[in-house]
Amino acid sequence: MFTVNAYAATSATEPLTPTTIERREVGPHDILIEIRYAGICHSDIHHVRGDWGDAHYPVVPGHEIAGVVTEVGPEVTRFAPGDKAGIGCLVGSCGACAPCRAGREQYCAVGGTLTYGSLEADGRLTHGGYSTHIVVTEDFALKMPESVDLAAATPLLCAGITTYSPLRRFGAGPGTKVAVVGLGGLGHMAVQLAHALGAEVTVLSQSLKKRDDGLRLGADHYYATSDPETFEQLAGTFDLIINTVSARLDLDAYLSLLTVEGALVNVGAPAEPMSLNVFSLLTSGRTFAGSMIGGLPETQEMLDFCDVQRIGSEIELIPAQKINDAYERILASDVRYRFVIDVSTMA
Amino acid sequence: MFTVNAYAATSATEPLTPTTIERREVGPHDILIEIRYAGICHSDIHHVRGDWGDAHYPVVPGHEIAGVVTEVGPEVTRFAPGDKAGIGCLVGSCGACAPCRAGREQYCAVGGTLTYGSLEADGRLTHGGYSTHIVVTEDFALKMPESVDLAAATPLLCAGITTYSPLRRFGAGPGTKVAVVGLGGLGHMAVQLAHALGAEVTVLSQSLKKRDDGLRLGADHYYATSDPETFEQLAGTFDLIINTVSARLDLDAYLSLLTVEGALVNVGAPAEPMSLNVFSLLTSGRTFAGSMIGGLPETQEMLDFCDVQRIGSEIELIPAQKINDAYERILASDVRYRFVIDVSTMA
Repeated sequence: MFTVNAYAATSATEPLTPTTIERREVGPHDILIEIRYAGICHSDIHHVRGDWGDAHYPVVPGHEIAGVVTEVGPEVTRFAPGDKAGIGCLVGSCGACAPCRAGREQYCAVGGTLTYGSLEADGRLTHGGYSTHIVVTEDFALKMPESVDLAAATPLLCAGITTYSPLRRFGAGPGTKVAVVGLGGLGHMAVQLAHALGAEVTVLSQSLKKRDDGLRLGADHYYATSDPETFEQLAGTFDLIINTVSARLDLDAYLSLLTVEGALVNVGAPAEPMSLNVFSLLTSGRTFAGSMIGGLPETQEMLDFCDVQRIGSEIELIPAQKINDAYERILASDVRYRFVIDVSTMA
Repeated sequence: MFTVNAYAATSATEPLTPTTIERREVGPHDILIEIRYAGICHSDIHHVRGDWGDAHYPVVPGHEIAGVVTEVGPEVTRFAPGDKAGIGCLVGSCGACAPCRAGREQYCAVGGTLTYGSLEADGRLTHGGYSTHIVVTEDFALKMPESVDLAAATPLLCAGITTYSPLRRFGAGPGTKVAVVGLGGLGHMAVQLAHALGAEVTVLSQSLKKRDDGLRLGADHYYATSDPETFEQLAGTFDLIINTVSARLDLDAYLSLLTVEGALVNVGAPAEPMSLNVFSLLTSGRTFAGSMIGGLPETQEMLDFCDVQRIGSEIELIPAQKINDAYERILASDVRYRFVIDVSTMA
C-alpha cells in the first residue's frame, strides 16, 4: 500500500476536501498510472450526494481518468512505462458471465467493480480519479488517442463511450437521421460522434442558446423543444434519438419524432418513473431503450475512432481547488461542455 | 355494386345483428372472395364498442378472413378462381412511402386502409369479414396454407402475423429464450411460432390453469405470474418477451426478466399510459418496443412458414348467430383460443 493525494466527499452534504488515500501495490497484472486529468461527470455529483441511494464515504469520485503509466507488473503485456493510459467507469468484472465474455463488462451479471464507490474483493472501497495515482489491472486500462490533447480526450472515457455505444448499436451512419436531446457533456459528444459516423444530426435543446456551438460541433439542424411547432414539424423524422437529459420528459412527444421502427435511447438517468402510452410504440413499431456506458473493447474502439477523427471534448480545465464550484456550475448548466481537473494541482 | 349478407353493430352498445351491405364491383386488379371463415379478434370488440375512439357505424368487423376466389379482374396475375385466399388487417396503403416500399404497409405514412372501419378513397366505409363476400385488390390478398385446415389458418391473418413479426425482428431462434406473456389468442400463436422458430419458450400466465395447453403447444416452461417467486427465479433470463396482454402491467418487473440487451415487445394495446423506471432499461441495455401486425410480404412469409410447420390456431367454430355470445366469452377469457365464424351460416 502507498499513500496518494486525493479530493474526497466525507458525507452527502459536505464539500469535497483534500485528503490522502491508500492505493494497492502494483500486482503482476496491474499498471500504476500517474493521473494527469480527471473529468467531472454529472453522475459524480449524484453519487456524492446520495441521489441514487446511500454512498459509502469517503467518496473519491472520477471515472474519466487519463494519465501516464509509471510502473507495470511483471505479467503486463499491453502497457509500458511512459504510455498514455485511461480508465473509465469500470475497473473490474467477473470475466466469466455471458456479458463479460461478449465484451459487455458494463452489464456483468455478477456486477462490475465501479471505478469508485464499489467494494473490491478484499472489502476495500474503490476510489476514482480525483487523485494523483491509481493502480488498475491492465485489462481495464485503455490506450488514449494521440491526435487529441490528453485533457480533451479524458471525457471520452464516460461521455464519449456512453453516447458512442448506442449510436453504434442502433446503426447511426450514412443515410440515417439522428437527433440528440440536450447539448451538455453527453450531448456535445453525441453530436460529434454521430456526425463523424456519417449521420445527419439534429440537436433538440430547450432553447436556441447553444445553437452556434451545436452547428460548429457537427449538427446539421438545431431546434428548440420549448417551441411546440418543433414537434409538429419533425414528426416521424428520426431513425434514432439519443436522450442525454436526466430529467423526466414527455416520452410520447419524443417518440412521435421517430420514423417507423426508430429508437429512442435514454442515456440520461432520471430518478423518477416515466410514463408513456404504449400506442406511441405500437403504431410505428418504435423502440424505447436504455444504454449504459460501454464495454472495454467498444471503449477502445471509440477511442481509436476519435483518434482517427480527431474528436475530443470541449473542456474547461480547472484546478482541484475549484471542484466544488464546478459542481455548482454543472447543476446550473453553466459549463461548455465538461470540467476537467488538472490533477497536477493536487500534488 | 352488389349486396351481400353481413353481421353489423349499429352502435357501441347494441349487439351485432344480421344485415346487408354493398360490395364494390370487381375492378381490373380486384379479386372477389367468397368468405368461408372469419376470426373474431379482441380488437373487433374494442372497435365496435368505441374503446379506441369513436367508430363509424354500422361496423362490420372481421380482419381474419379466409375463403375461396370466385372471380378475378382482367389484370389479376396471382389468383385464379378456386384459389384459397386470405385477408388480414389491411386492404390498402399508399404504396409510395418508405414503409410501404419496404413492405411495412402496416406503418404506411399516409395511413393504411383498414379492412373495416376505414374510409376508402371514394368516401365509403370499409367492411370486414363478418359477411359472405369481399372484394379486394390482389396486392392485399394472401395465399393460404394448404397443410392446415382453412378455418384453423384464418386467425393467422392477425394473431399469427402480430406475433410472428416481432419474433422475427427481435431474432427468436435456436439458442434464444423467449417468454410469452398471456396464453390467449395471440399468446397461443406466439408459443407455437417461437417454438417452430427454434427458441426455448416459456409461458408467463396469471395462473397455471392453461399449463397443459401451453406445453402441448410447444412451451418448454410455464410459470404463474401471480407467484412473486416467478420474478425472482427468472430474473435476467429472456432474450425476448412478447407481451400479448392488453392490460397495464408492472413493466419494471417484466423488464427485470430480460437478459442484457433483451427486448420486451408489446403487441397488446392497453388504453391507459404505463409507467416505468428508466433504470430498468439502462442497467442492462434493455429495450421496450411495440409491434403492430405485419406487412404483406411478411404476412405471406408467415403463412408459408405455418404451411411448412403445419401450424394453425386452436379454434372454436361458431355459427354467425353466436357472435354476441362469443364476444361475452372473450371478455370473460373463456375461449381456447380463437372463435372463428362459419360464414356459411350467414347465407
